[in-house]
Amino acid sequence: MGPVTENPTACVVVIGNEVLSGRTQDANIRYLAQRLGELGIPLREVRIIPDVADVIIRTVNEVRAAFDHVFTTGGIGPTHDDITSECVAAAFGVPWEKQPVVWARMEAHYAPGQFNAARQRMATMPRGAVLIDNGRTIAPGFSIGNVHVMAGVPAIMRLMFDMLAPRLAGGAPIVSRSVHAAGVREGDIAAGLTAIQARYAALDLGSYPYFRDEGAGVAIVAKGTDAAAAEAAIAEVAALFTALGGTPVAGEPV
Amino acid sequence: MGPVTENPTACVVVIGNEVLSGRTQDANIRYLAQRLGELGIPLREVRIIPDVADVIIRTVNEVRAAFDHVFTTGGIGPTHDDITSECVAAAFGVPWEKQPVVWARMEAHYAPGQFNAARQRMATMPRGAVLIDNGRTIAPGFSIGNVHVMAGVPAIMRLMFDMLAPRLAGGAPIVSRSVHAAGVREGDIAAGLTAIQARYAALDLGSYPYFRDEGAGVAIVAKGTDAAAAEAAIAEVAALFTALGGTPVAGEPV
Repeated sequence: MGPVTENPTACVVVIGNEVLSGRTQDANIRYLAQRLGELGIPLREVRIIPDVADVIIRTVNEVRAAFDHVFTTGGIGPTHDDITSECVAAAFGVPWEKQPVVWARMEAHYAPGQFNAARQRMATMPRGAVLIDNGRTIAPGFSIGNVHVMAGVPAIMRLMFDMLAPRLAGGAPIVSRSVHAAGVREGDIAAGLTAIQARYAALDLGSYPYFRDEGAGVAIVAKGTDAAAAEAAIAEVAALFTALGGTPVAGEPV
Repeated sequence: MGPVTENPTACVVVIGNEVLSGRTQDANIRYLAQRLGELGIPLREVRIIPDVADVIIRTVNEVRAAFDHVFTTGGIGPTHDDITSECVAAAFGVPWEKQPVVWARMEAHYAPGQFNAARQRMATMPRGAVLIDNGRTIAPGFSIGNVHVMAGVPAIMRLMFDMLAPRLAGGAPIVSRSVHAAGVREGDIAAGLTAIQARYAALDLGSYPYFRDEGAGVAIVAKGTDAAAAEAAIAEVAALFTALGGTPVAGEPV
């Protein structure tokens, strides 16, 4: 293996009662996990928290100290439950104030009288915020320090992430190789798999049993920044499957 | 309103690299959120963490002190990345030891030689663990204190939750009422909505813009333990929609 470079780490904070109540199936976590992996900024933790000021402030301060990048989704609209922006200002201990670029843009956009107090809140940001536009709505997200504040609506969040991604200093991309075999049980391969994991300590080897109508089996996924090592580890797993009477098939079961 | 009874609170901890890597779309959070709401044990926070011992131990100890119930999913299989059980023992400071009931059951189930070291780990639990069977596989989850340790495979997790639910002391169920209107924008209703939320402080009023081919609009959802209050609040929201020229429709957009 070549020299090991530490990848920067990411934490996602999903802010909103709608995921915690079960009203909404989150659609942002998996998307961000995949995009961040490609950028070499692996996602290390997710927190889903309610629209409660002291929880948001405490959580932002905990995770911005623990991870290189923090990505929040949700809570930046105009209604009473949209309090992410002022909470991030409070977490950083900076004023939450009129953002002149956004303010002017929104004032010009709305008909007279429609740029009301609720919408003015969307033009109010922590001092020092760097805008994250989205090309579809006029209201941007923003970055402050290592915290990136994005919308919760998936289509808008993705557009914002597209804008943000080129600004992030990433690491080596996380690549993935996998193999699976029907009829093999996790409990039979565990010891062999532990030995392979020990030989490839820089990789993350995951074992995922599956249950399909056409038969149960196990898929093994190797992830890391070293594609050659991932391929070598998966070749050893395939040999382990064969030794146990299984027929290894490249990739994961479709 | 009648006397306010505090509902017990819940935190879900999803343990597994596969959600953080984007390999897997989590399918347990929303299910647990809905079931826990029905039991009157509202979900207040979710953490998704990797298969890393010190992270699991620290997280379990943080959240079991902060919430009435903690539900973990994932990491209780036989392979090297299944370390939830021993980490929960470490978090509680109790021995991780042979669980005689599960041990005997698994020993009887497997052919001679197949109850190997990997499978024996699934019969090893924190001292004092109370089993959570699932009726489909022989390997149970367990509760210790206020921490309930369940499988990550959704079908098994749901069977375990069915077994666990009757043992949980819940509160008044969380009920939900909603209304929506096309053509209404969040920024126009925000002030009126803030006033309604202030009059119904025991409810959680959520505002959710939607974007459909047939038109955009806003849905408002009132959640709480007092159904009459939720209905009254939603009636006020409907009147607000009407005052702004909208046509309120009961429920959420399909």
